[in-house]
Parts: sequence; C-alpha cells; structure tokens
Amino acid sequence: MTMRGWILVLGLIPATLQAQEAAKDGPPVPLPSNVRGSAFPAMGPERRLRFRLKAPEARLVEVRCKGSLWGGKPFPLTKDKDGVWIGTSEPAEPGFYYYELIVDGVPMNDPGSRTYFGWGRETSGLDIPDKLYDFCEIRPVPHGEVRARTYESKITGTPRRAFIYTPPDYDRDSSRRYPVLYLQHGSGESERSWSEQGRAQVILDNLIAERQAEEMIVVMEQGYATKAGAAPAVNARGNEAFEELVVNDLIPMIDATYRTKPDRDSRAIAGLSMGGGQAIRIGLGHPDLFASVAALSGGAAGRSAGASLPEGLAKAVEEPAAFNARMRLLWIGCGLQDGGYARTKDAHEALEKAGVTHMWFDTAGGHEWGVWRKSLHDLAPRLFRTK
Amino acid sequence: MTMRGWILVLGLIPATLQAQEAAKDGPPVPLPSNVRGSAFPAMGPERRLRFRLKAPEARLVEVRCKGSLWGGKPFPLTKDKDGVWIGTSEPAEPGFYYYELIVDGVPMNDPGSRTYFGWGRETSGLDIPDKLYDFCEIRPVPHGEVRARTYESKITGTPRRAFIYTPPDYDRDSSRRYPVLYLQHGSGESERSWSEQGRAQVILDNLIAERQAEEMIVVMEQGYATKAGAAPAVNARGNEAFEELVVNDLIPMIDATYRTKPDRDSRAIAGLSMGGGQAIRIGLGHPDLFASVAALSGGAAGRSAGASLPEGLAKAVEEPAAFNARMRLLWIGCGLQDGGYARTKDAHEALEKAGVTHMWFDTAGGHEWGVWRKSLHDLAPRLFRTK
Repeated sequence: MTMRGWILVLGLIPATLQAQEAAKDGPPVPLPSNVRGSAFPAMGPERRLRFRLKAPEARLVEVRCKGSLWGGKPFPLTKDKDGVWIGTSEPAEPGFYYYELIVDGVPMNDPGSRTYFGWGRETSGLDIPDKLYDFCEIRPVPHGEVRARTYESKITGTPRRAFIYTPPDYDRDSSRRYPVLYLQHGSGESERSWSEQGRAQVILDNLIAERQAEEMIVVMEQGYATKAGAAPAVNARGNEAFEELVVNDLIPMIDATYRTKPDRDSRAIAGLSMGGGQAIRIGLGHPDLFASVAALSGGAAGRSAGASLPEGLAKAVEEPAAFNARMRLLWIGCGLQDGGYARTKDAHEALEKAGVTHMWFDTAGGHEWGVWRKSLHDLAPRLFRTK
Repeated sequence: MTMRGWILVLGLIPATLQAQEAAKDGPPVPLPSNVRGSAFPAMGPERRLRFRLKAPEARLVEVRCKGSLWGGKPFPLTKDKDGVWIGTSEPAEPGFYYYELIVDGVPMNDPGSRTYFGWGRETSGLDIPDKLYDFCEIRPVPHGEVRARTYESKITGTPRRAFIYTPPDYDRDSSRRYPVLYLQHGSGESERSWSEQGRAQVILDNLIAERQAEEMIVVMEQGYATKAGAAPAVNARGNEAFEELVVNDLIPMIDATYRTKPDRDSRAIAGLSMGGGQAIRIGLGHPDLFASVAALSGGAAGRSAGASLPEGLAKAVEEPAAFNARMRLLWIGCGLQDGGYARTKDAHEALEKAGVTHMWFDTAGGHEWGVWRKSLHDLAPRLFRTK
C-alpha cells in the first residue's frame, strides 16, 4: 500500500498508533519519541526497530536498551560504505524504554531521539505504541494543561519547579475546587518524567473524558532535595529533606495557589520505585494530610525477601482496623517481570493476611514506564470516589 | 575561602549568579545548564570552562561550541590514566550557547548537560551567567506559569502543543483580560526554546514585578507545520502552513481558551531568526490581527546585501504615513557580531530614511540566545503601552 493510502486508511486512528498499524506490512515508520523529522529509530514488521547513526571513523556502534528490551544486552549495527551504521533489532514489546548508542565503548544519545530525564541525565527513549496502550494516546477530547510553576522552598533555600496538571474545565468555573494527587517519579528521574515518559496528562484527559476518573489536580515535583546550607546529596533516595519540603513548602504552596480541596480525604500521594518509597513514607507518615497512598513498583516491600515491611505498612499490620477506618485507599502494584515483584507480592500477602484493606495490581512488564502508565490508568479511577 | 564561606557570603545573590561570583577566585563551579548533581561543565577564573568525559577507548575527544565561543572551532581534551578526558577552555563570553563533544569524529551530547532543542535535535547547552544577564535570573518575585497545552489543528490535522506564559496574577482575578505576545523560536528549535534557552518567563516575571512591562500572555508554538495530507516538510522555513495555522487555529484557540484582549491593538508577534521572518510575514501580512511586530536577528532584511526588503517592510517604505498610523510598534534588532547585522542595519536605515517609525536595537553578541534574551528584555516593556 502506498504512503498516501496509509494516510487515508489511518485517518481515524490516533497518530502514534498509526505507526503500529502501518508498520505491520509497510515500510518502517518513525517512533513518536523521535525528534521532529527524524526517520530513525523506525519500527517495522514484528515491532523490530531499525537504528541509524553516521559515524565513519567509529570501529563499533551498538544499541543498548537501558531496560528489559533484548535482555538489556547491546547489539551491534553494521557500517555501510558511506560510514553509516545501520541495523535492525529483535522484536520489541510495546511500552517506553530508555536506550543509548555505544560508540567505541562511549555511551551517547541517539540524535534521532528526543531526550527524557532518566538515569540521572538526558537519555534517549523508545516509545513503542500498541493498542494495549491506547489509553495514553492523545485523542480529540478536552485537554487539561501541564503548568510549570516556580516557587521558593524554605527547606532547600532555592527556587524549585513543580509541574501541575489542571483538568480541562479548571479555568471554566472559577468557584470549583478539586482533589489533588501528588505523583512522584523514580530514581534518576525528574519533575518532567510523569508528563513525558508517563503521559500522565493524556491518561487523565482520556479518563476524565470517559467519566472514568474524577477531575483532579496532579502535582509532579522532583523527588530530590538538599536542606539549605547542607552539602548537596546527589542521589538522596526518599530523603528527609524531600519529606519536609512536601509537607512545609509544596502542599501549602499548592493549596494557596490552586483551587484545591485542602483536606486529607481529597489528597493522595503516589510514586513509582523510589517515589513509591516516598509515597509510603510521606503519605502514611502524615495521616493528617493524606487519606490515599499508592506505591507503584517500589516502596511497599522490605529491601530483601522476608524483610520486615516499611514502617507505615508494619503499623497497618499491627492495627488493621484503625488503618482501614483511617485510609480511603492503599494501592500497591508491580510488574510481573520486575526484579522486586516477589518481595512486593510478599508485602501484599502480608497485608491481606492481616486484613489491611488495599488494592493489588499486577501486570505484564518489568521495572519500566509501560507498567507505570498502566498503573496510573488503574489507580486514577479509584481516587477521590466514595469509599 | 571555604565552600561554606562562599555559601554564607552569596546567600543574597540569585543562585546562578553565585557561580559567576564564586568562580572568580574559587574552585570551578557547575553551570546552571548542567543536569542535577553534575560537577561538569564547570566555570573557573576568567570564565574558562572545564569539561570532562570518561571515554577510555576513545582516540580523540574535542569540545565544539555550535556558536561563537572559541571561534566555533573544536578544542581537544586530554586523557588521564583512568581514561577520563579533561580540559579547560579559553575564556567565554557570558550568554547561552549550544555545544557538543566530538568523540573520534562523532558529535555527541555531554552527559553532564541538560539538553535544549536546537539544530533540529536535543543539544547540550552552556548557560554562562553574568551580572549583565541578571534580568533573567530567577528572583523571589511573583511567578507566572508556563502552561503546556495540547490542541487540535485543522490545518495540520494533528494535535499540536503550545507553551503559554500566563502572568503571576492571571488566576487571581478571573474577570481581567490580557494582551498577547506570540513569540517564535528560530530554525531547528521548538516551542520549548523560549522558556528554556530564552528564559522568557523569568524575564517577564522580573519586568512585571518591577512594573517595567505590562502583564501579558505569551504564546510559544513550534514554527513548523505541514498541511494535512501533504508530504512532511522537514525544515519548511516560515512556511505558508504555519501562517495558516497561526491565523486559523492558534489565535482562535488562544482567544477562546484564555482571557485575552482579542483585538489587534492587544496582539503582537515577535520571533528570532527564522521566527523573525514569520513575525514580519504573518504580523505585517495580517494588519487586522496584529498592531505590533518584532523581528529579532532575522526577517527584516533582504536575503543578501542590497536586496529588496521583505514584502511587509517594502510596503511600509512605499506608504510610511499609512503604516505609521496603523502600527503600534515595529521593533527590529540584531547582534553586532551577527552575520546578518549589516543587512539588518541596511533595512533599519531604509526604514528610517523613508520615515517608517520603528525601534532599532543593536547589542553586543552574535546569532545567539544571549542577544535574544536581551532583545526580549528590551522589547517587552515597549509592548501594549500607550503609543
């Protein structure tokens, strides 16, 4: 079928899904994670990805997914007579993955890809569409906004930036107030991650249009903080300074700036991986502030098999009736191929055995954004509704 | 002086200027354009920049500014016994520059730098602070927001994303309406560029806090568009589809969604380089829509020395009285070291000779973001005020 034919046939399918459909028997099509106008990486039949890099002087160019694709092992490209390295991958599971090119042993970004903040730096990404993920395709529904807001933190003594999703109708009725979800990224990521890798605003827009989720504000901050005057901690995981920042700076700023429902029943905290630990620590540690807590692929389990639960969950197991009466929602999820799956399932079973009411969500996938997109899609409809 | 001493002394100076001050005789300090926690690139005495890359197998690692620094010529780093390449540049002029590392002939991003969309891809940046640019340092003043908004374009048949600056008080008084500046990036850049490379929201926040500029909405879109059904034009400069998109999709969406003053006197269009051409073409081509037009380092001059002016300005020269009566502001600026400076000055002189009222702004610098930050700082206070 000609390119024009494909455009006509696919006119009613969201843009990024067209890639999936067209690639089934057409020529490879660029990924939605590519920069404007870049033909590579491209997806062909069987979801095999084609890569390209011009590097005439290089001795070896490899592609490595910094995640589960192709077993996380690099595979080599082949140099043609013009010094262009090209090659095709094994089939790829749909979802979102970080990756890099390795040129003579030096990892680098693929100039054909947009960059996503992950692994503590700007990293190339493979956003591989599929009908399985159609809930995070942009559709012609009313759209909310993602607002970048600068505010001064007393805890860190610096300006900080939060990304705030406001639902489609936010500016239409200036008397209405909304519940708030605080949504945290994982280790090595940033306040941009949930809107870029996670497409949180698209997932929410679609759920709200379908009346599957309550209209809500979503606050996405950077889960790293160093107290004013202290030596910077480069990678302080789920640390005390961030907890103080959320409680003393972020929540008061959000409640003063946006039309929130500023009560615990209307406030939730969720996070993935390191952010799941922050959600458990901050959410369960401040029951006056949060009635709903969600840990996505992290934070709910002990650090090793058989280890005790984190403090907030250990308390819940001790006093399940009080915990159940206090909480509106405790949500725990993990990908079936996640290295932490067994430990997280142990935690779920310990909670279940003790009679701690909670939602358990497991789904195909590793420690990756495909799972977190699916997790938010499952979690959001359960928030802020009648118990 | 100790690190702690520096922190005490510098407590009252905006964070990124501390780098400048500390580096005068202290150890090199990281640039504000670095990723979180990266010590390199770092600025030392005389604003010399220090770079670092681990690449044990590489034969040659160079640093190249994709702009005016160091004459645009690459300079080599030196490998130490651990395979780490390191080196210090010649002194650098303050401002913002794109750059790359070249490893055995292959250009790559510096993993220590954030990426900025330029040169048609995600590119490393050097944001070199100085008191000269203190107008674009984040200060403890009321902050506006930069809102990412998705909308459907009938012209392109796709969803598009616009970045919209709303001034600090926008959400406080829901009856108030604001004038709108449409602000375009240059070739190879994107809707993100004015907020990231340009710090437009910081410049506006500061000017509004000092009552130097009117409160305004600023709309930043991507200056590339391909008509629905047409073959994509990768690098269509200032093209017809983008003009149609602005007139038929973008302005109606903005006026329907935000509390704008939807009249020509309250609407301006400005752009840099390629975006300057778009501002002249769209702004002067639609006098029913725009009463103020600004061309930053591009768009006002003919394509070569002695060439005729672009259509909108040629008409102005023919009918200066009518043009002067119609326009609230025509603003033309260029960096003194810009390759297009002589041609742009020719245009300015032709306008002056014909009696076309306009503002002429020249300032030290090349075809670069330092000049465009200074340009916006000069332009914004002149907009939407009594003639």
